[in-house]
Amino acid sequence: MTDQSSKTPPKPASGGQAMWGGRFSAKPADLMQAINVSIGFDRRLAAQDLAGSRAHAAMLAATGIISSADEGEIQRGLGLIEAEMAGGSFPYRDEFEDIHMNVEARLRELIGPAAGRLHTARSRNDQVALDFRLWVRDACDRTAAQIEALQKALLARAEQHADTLMPGFTHLQSAQPVTFGHHLMAYVEMFGRDAGRFRDARKRMNESPLGAAALAGSSFPIDRQATAQALGFDGPTHNSLDSVAARDFALEALAAAAICAVHLSRLAEEIVLWMTPQFGFIRLTDAFTTGSSIMPQKKNPDAAELTRAKAGRVLGALTSLMVVMKGLPMTYSKDMQEDKVPTFEAFDSLELGVLAMTGMIGDLEPRADRMAAAAGAGFATATDLADWLVRTLDIPFRDAHHLTGAAVKRAEQLGVDLAELSLAEMQALDPRITESVYSVLTPAASAASRTSYGGTAPTEVRRQIARWKEILQ
Amino acid sequence: MTDQSSKTPPKPASGGQAMWGGRFSAKPADLMQAINVSIGFDRRLAAQDLAGSRAHAAMLAATGIISSADEGEIQRGLGLIEAEMAGGSFPYRDEFEDIHMNVEARLRELIGPAAGRLHTARSRNDQVALDFRLWVRDACDRTAAQIEALQKALLARAEQHADTLMPGFTHLQSAQPVTFGHHLMAYVEMFGRDAGRFRDARKRMNESPLGAAALAGSSFPIDRQATAQALGFDGPTHNSLDSVAARDFALEALAAAAICAVHLSRLAEEIVLWMTPQFGFIRLTDAFTTGSSIMPQKKNPDAAELTRAKAGRVLGALTSLMVVMKGLPMTYSKDMQEDKVPTFEAFDSLELGVLAMTGMIGDLEPRADRMAAAAGAGFATATDLADWLVRTLDIPFRDAHHLTGAAVKRAEQLGVDLAELSLAEMQALDPRITESVYSVLTPAASAASRTSYGGTAPTEVRRQIARWKEILQ
Amino acid sequence: MTDQSSKTPPKPASGGQAMWGGRFSAKPADLMQAINVSIGFDRRLAAQDLAGSRAHAAMLAATGIISSADEGEIQRGLGLIEAEMAGGSFPYRDEFEDIHMNVEARLRELIGPAAGRLHTARSRNDQVALDFRLWVRDACDRTAAQIEALQKALLARAEQHADTLMPGFTHLQSAQPVTFGHHLMAYVEMFGRDAGRFRDARKRMNESPLGAAALAGSSFPIDRQATAQALGFDGPTHNSLDSVAARDFALEALAAAAICAVHLSRLAEEIVLWMTPQFGFIRLTDAFTTGSSIMPQKKNPDAAELTRAKAGRVLGALTSLMVVMKGLPMTYSKDMQEDKVPTFEAFDSLELGVLAMTGMIGDLEPRADRMAAAAGAGFATATDLADWLVRTLDIPFRDAHHLTGAAVKRAEQLGVDLAELSLAEMQALDPRITESVYSVLTPAASAASRTSYGGTAPTEVRRQIARWKEILQ
Amino acid sequence: MTDQSSKTPPKPASGGQAMWGGRFSAKPADLMQAINVSIGFDRRLAAQDLAGSRAHAAMLAATGIISSADEGEIQRGLGLIEAEMAGGSFPYRDEFEDIHMNVEARLRELIGPAAGRLHTARSRNDQVALDFRLWVRDACDRTAAQIEALQKALLARAEQHADTLMPGFTHLQSAQPVTFGHHLMAYVEMFGRDAGRFRDARKRMNESPLGAAALAGSSFPIDRQATAQALGFDGPTHNSLDSVAARDFALEALAAAAICAVHLSRLAEEIVLWMTPQFGFIRLTDAFTTGSSIMPQKKNPDAAELTRAKAGRVLGALTSLMVVMKGLPMTYSKDMQEDKVPTFEAFDSLELGVLAMTGMIGDLEPRADRMAAAAGAGFATATDLADWLVRTLDIPFRDAHHLTGAAVKRAEQLGVDLAELSLAEMQALDPRITESVYSVLTPAASAASRTSYGGTAPTEVRRQIARWKEILQ
Repeated sequence: MTDQSSKTPPKPASGGQAMWGGRFSAKPADLMQAINVSIGFDRRLAAQDLAGSRAHAAMLAATGIISSADEGEIQRGLGLIEAEMAGGSFPYRDEFEDIHMNVEARLRELIGPAAGRLHTARSRNDQVALDFRLWVRDACDRTAAQIEALQKALLARAEQHADTLMPGFTHLQSAQPVTFGHHLMAYVEMFGRDAGRFRDARKRMNESPLGAAALAGSSFPIDRQATAQALGFDGPTHNSLDSVAARDFALEALAAAAICAVHLSRLAEEIVLWMTPQFGFIRLTDAFTTGSSIMPQKKNPDAAELTRAKAGRVLGALTSLMVVMKGLPMTYSKDMQEDKVPTFEAFDSLELGVLAMTGMIGDLEPRADRMAAAAGAGFATATDLADWLVRTLDIPFRDAHHLTGAAVKRAEQLGVDLAELSLAEMQALDPRITESVYSVLTPAASAASRTSYGGTAPTEVRRQIARWKEILQ
Repeated sequence: MTDQSSKTPPKPASGGQAMWGGRFSAKPADLMQAINVSIGFDRRLAAQDLAGSRAHAAMLAATGIISSADEGEIQRGLGLIEAEMAGGSFPYRDEFEDIHMNVEARLRELIGPAAGRLHTARSRNDQVALDFRLWVRDACDRTAAQIEALQKALLARAEQHADTLMPGFTHLQSAQPVTFGHHLMAYVEMFGRDAGRFRDARKRMNESPLGAAALAGSSFPIDRQATAQALGFDGPTHNSLDSVAARDFALEALAAAAICAVHLSRLAEEIVLWMTPQFGFIRLTDAFTTGSSIMPQKKNPDAAELTRAKAGRVLGALTSLMVVMKGLPMTYSKDMQEDKVPTFEAFDSLELGVLAMTGMIGDLEPRADRMAAAAGAGFATATDLADWLVRTLDIPFRDAHHLTGAAVKRAEQLGVDLAELSLAEMQALDPRITESVYSVLTPAASAASRTSYGGTAPTEVRRQIARWKEILQ
Repeated sequence: MTDQSSKTPPKPASGGQAMWGGRFSAKPADLMQAINVSIGFDRRLAAQDLAGSRAHAAMLAATGIISSADEGEIQRGLGLIEAEMAGGSFPYRDEFEDIHMNVEARLRELIGPAAGRLHTARSRNDQVALDFRLWVRDACDRTAAQIEALQKALLARAEQHADTLMPGFTHLQSAQPVTFGHHLMAYVEMFGRDAGRFRDARKRMNESPLGAAALAGSSFPIDRQATAQALGFDGPTHNSLDSVAARDFALEALAAAAICAVHLSRLAEEIVLWMTPQFGFIRLTDAFTTGSSIMPQKKNPDAAELTRAKAGRVLGALTSLMVVMKGLPMTYSKDMQEDKVPTFEAFDSLELGVLAMTGMIGDLEPRADRMAAAAGAGFATATDLADWLVRTLDIPFRDAHHLTGAAVKRAEQLGVDLAELSLAEMQALDPRITESVYSVLTPAASAASRTSYGGTAPTEVRRQIARWKEILQ
Repeated sequence: MTDQSSKTPPKPASGGQAMWGGRFSAKPADLMQAINVSIGFDRRLAAQDLAGSRAHAAMLAATGIISSADEGEIQRGLGLIEAEMAGGSFPYRDEFEDIHMNVEARLRELIGPAAGRLHTARSRNDQVALDFRLWVRDACDRTAAQIEALQKALLARAEQHADTLMPGFTHLQSAQPVTFGHHLMAYVEMFGRDAGRFRDARKRMNESPLGAAALAGSSFPIDRQATAQALGFDGPTHNSLDSVAARDFALEALAAAAICAVHLSRLAEEIVLWMTPQFGFIRLTDAFTTGSSIMPQKKNPDAAELTRAKAGRVLGALTSLMVVMKGLPMTYSKDMQEDKVPTFEAFDSLELGVLAMTGMIGDLEPRADRMAAAAGAGFATATDLADWLVRTLDIPFRDAHHLTGAAVKRAEQLGVDLAELSLAEMQALDPRITESVYSVLTPAASAASRTSYGGTAPTEVRRQIARWKEILQ
């Protein structure tokens, strides 16, 4: 019988014990500190915490809950703290656990007993809920703006290359000629929806939880509309338990981030492919690649690869918070302290990806000759011939398809491309075929003919560009 | 040296070979069939495929691309197919691989050569993109409607129990008294945002991909606005490559589903807890529990447990499609065939969860006595005493806190609750305390005092209910 | 103030209500049936259920808990059921909910009251735990065997191409020449570890939960060792609560499956790349590609793409079950009914991927000329020159690197490859350089020189192959 | 027509621009630094990097590739660096990007040109692969040891409470009496398998990648067996491409970590439940809870909640790396730099969880009276009565079940428990019932009767404990 695993004890590399130790001490006091101290990461909420306290203090004075004098002192103290933070002299201390208590403790040191009034009609749950929501809201705004910058970079490139031919791929096989501008504009669409998701998320989350107090609301005559307005919210949240317990605002933002990261990974994958000697569709400068001094041709597209990888980090963060929240009864549980690090990391990762992609789009140079050659290879205009037969000779689609197959076979036998088949060869297939057929058999003609709304015809691509320019101006 | 694992070959249970076989044959032809045949699952797109074909045929005739006679035949044939499907006699056949080709083949059998005209200026990529998008759009509509029904069930219950006391929890420890109505209204807020996410997703995806053709657009004079309108879209998509390549509409819908499933899992967890003999906060009838004939007290909350579990399935589906799309170059790759099953399963799972939860909310009966007793236990109104001291005697928050601690200690010594401390005992702590302090020391008084916007005071809860009734009417 | 989302109600495509309905009825009885009836999917456990019942009945008779006559009847009845299942006539009925009760009910119909004795000292929890574990164990065995078949296919190909040159890539840029055989052998290593993971998982899970009864064990004198042995287990599990509550055996199997699916996705990605006209490194026949009748060059690598996508499904399944089990108190909860469908789907997906990959490896034909040309491009042997300088002239690594850079620059100026630089040119860099330097400057020489253990030298590759042939024989 | 989202631009909280900025500058040089500089996190590999360099240098000298004198200098220099690191004076510098180059640069500063010899026959890819694998191996060892300590804590508690009754739950409803010792031993089994998974993972990964060089192996006569042995590996890896490209060792370790984290989350959930006033099954001291000065009964089980939450972080990390590796062609891609942070975080999270759980198990005190009362409530021994009827009177199971139902109903009518029904009442159901029936109707008797292997009878529980003591000694 076995104990479900090999008996062999873990063999240390040397000396009878593990070479390198872990992070944590097993002493209860140390463990509880490791569990409770969050100042190491929630200091990123400092600006939000101060803004919340300023708004709360102003409201307390306006409603007469505290005196104007006390408020004045509090605002002065918060100003001093702000200055300390800006100057790098603010003392972040583990003994005060989190950012909220660090600020509170420092305020007391700076202004004395009046500091105690700030906490009237407010609980730490209030602050936790408010500060994190403000951070996520701001991250959504910033990301939406960065995505727009990326869209503009794509638009600029697309405009330059509205006519530049390249293969349109399915299954990573050339299917039909398209233009590089058209290809880039597809990503403008995707990123446009990404930005829209961040905007919708921010709109939905833009209600102030401040005033929920511990969880049940307050018995003080607080004015939640006032604090909401001061902090740029559309209004207060409508249920105090929900204010404390909800994290769907962060989940929605992380989901938007993950989808955007997947879009970035797709474009990044294409850049990696295009940079191979085999494709050779683009050039990137040293600004976004690394190389080897002895292998000058080797251009490692590090920035594209890392951007591609960030999809993992962002989806991992989304998964983390989903799992944390799954099955959690109301309202606040300590589990929810795990909301911040994944969210911070996800937005840092996404930001790096969006900025790197924006940089690469500005930096890359298409190799139009190689793209065009690939666009024309492999009887890429066979579909165009079939469509011409349907459109011009009113041949049923199925028969047109059959005739085209025969034409391709003949061209293959002769070792020429479709456009190089003589009219005699063409008419051997169907005598009604005329000279005008050649007007659709080059890649450029093929692309130019796709004039349906959203199609790859350069005129259409330019229309798409103009439309987005107006939206993004 | 090892080969990285135990040498022992897998030991079959008996007879020298595995007891039970796998799903697939290793023959190439069988494998390719297993890879390519999707009719087993994409038949769920049948209605969407027919709707798309009807719209396309009508447009082809309106633009003169096909004749009215041909269109008439096509529409008649599609009607016959619709009837066959409704009647269960439509022959779904593996040899035609997917729903699109099954319909096309059947149409040819029913109406002959005119069927071939339907495919003019349309490709299978068009249909794949259109049908799935229509399905997801419809799933979003249906889910939003089902969530609203759940909200209404919660509203009805909340109205009945706007005054019913229960403990408000943090860390699953009683923190402050709230009302059951208030608790339920927190979920109305969450589900309200969930419905909003589905509505935003549907709005963003509501553009018709039909007319992208293979990927580059069409050289026929098609009218994409017309087909878009016929299918209830706001308009056509703006880039044909994006139309074929995008799946973010499904990712967004799945993300909304996963967040909603997490919300359901939280309420389901609470129902499971409340149904334990230890909590005993609610009763559920046999409609949503299973029991044991010999243990009559045992009420297994199966419906709640399964609802809780569905968060796994839905998040799994989201993860699946994210991973499928990660790093995929444009436009269509076969990988994307893996979009459908996870999406179907996620929405089936969510639907079951929402309906089961709606049923349970209607079915459950709170045990108000047990809830109230729990709401009052453990000096639950200590915070109220502190707030009274601040508010009434203008004692600084910190000192009020200290005095409250002393009062609690005294009550503990005497084995009584705070409200049972005599006024003399109270005044021993601070002589300014008056009889009026008792007005905040019962759970009911505590709850009633939380009148800030969104607070737990029954008047506030009723206001919340009225607000939502108006929104949902 | 907003209700957190747009006010617009979902706009149905037509006629005032959603076009296509959901899966479930909202009637409580229907819902509970949808929640409780699992026969639709757990019928895949039929063989396992019968095996478990046979073993249990034999043990009950051997220990005298039931009579031999009763056992005889039970075994006869189970044989009849087995035959019905094999013949397709077994009546699976929703009214009996799951596979266990379907078999039990059918047994009673076939053999009468003796059937009732089978359930002595056994509970449904026992059966649920046993049957699923047997299924997962068998899936592990089957998968390990299928992976070995894949390894053998790779070995056969590697042996044919131990000398076939191709570029070794980092960052998808050519770095150094390797051989195709070497490349394939890297996957033999990965899949070897994958098979090892399945074997370790099966070993760890190979304990019989039968006899845990409802959860606390049995008061009958059952012989768990006997049933364990009859079912091919190493012995019984050691704790009855754990027997019922554990699902880590499935999680471990799914994790092994997900890692293997990721390995498959990597090789599948390479096949997709190699099949592009741009790389053109391999050919696949129509057995594993689909094409277009009018674009004969287009070879869509559908099998490779779907194999790549399966990583999503398998990781999704792992995520699903992880989330289901997260935070679940002991022992059985209805949530755990959600273990089966994801597990079935994951193993179906993996099986299809492994078989398709095995088929493709047997089918693919490398285009040695294109691979060799790519292997030699871009001064791919620059590192070899540097190493030669260090090794032969004892030049410090850093200086050797510098000299190599100069040589490459000179070759670039002259438009030649390194091997084409004259000895005079070489000696201009360092007069000690001799004719023998050319022995390392061709791709073939470069590869042949990498003779360190596990290196790409053909002799080393053949040694790797021989080693694996012995392991897998 | 819409641009797929609301037109409203993100509304900043104030002043026309976002309140708080992002992490990264958009300047290409800054971006590439952010992408390439990993010293901020890979400094955790310092000890591993030094160990690898020491082994490599020793081998270079032993094989004559470098001189003994050079090796002496290198070893001396590495010793100095080790001392600097231990003393906190080692200069980690961004300009040298990663830990490998930081060490290399510092070595050159300390010992001059001899430092250059260390890099002979070794590439950075070698170091990246080696150092991370060593770190993961060590993390597996450490985790396995920490899990064993947790098992020992559980064993000690289980031994004290082998007889302490508590309810055995299904669906979080009391099903049958078990003992607290038995319950804890179920987790000893689970954690035992967890430790086994880490040991299997470490065994499988315990092959040295050092010597793969860039990817193709080396042309120097290196001795990979020697370096493998020096670093505690079982031997070298067998394929140089695999050595550089593989990350399944980390995926397997993360999967083991995620499963273990799920197990921890289950026990943590139970602790949270048991700590509620409603269950009140255990007490935890202030060492692992936080409270409120004014609500002395409130004991927030922060340590348990955070442990429960860590399942999210660890599963998120696994997801991250799976997604990163999905579809990645060989060998090294920059994407793989994203392997480290998730892995570090996952093991930090798991370590904290295991240590906190070990502490809580040692700290918790069961409230035996409340557990026992719950174990006896609700006719918990009904099954025992049924089994007694089958066993003693040879009544078929189904009839026994029916009689038991009648007995329970009678007891319910009389308002007594089953054990309190008079013998006359019992015999009214079946006259053959004797006094001896009462020997199974108390919770203690029920538990004591479950003597099957692995059952809850205290004698069995003690046997389980003894078995594990031997395994873990």
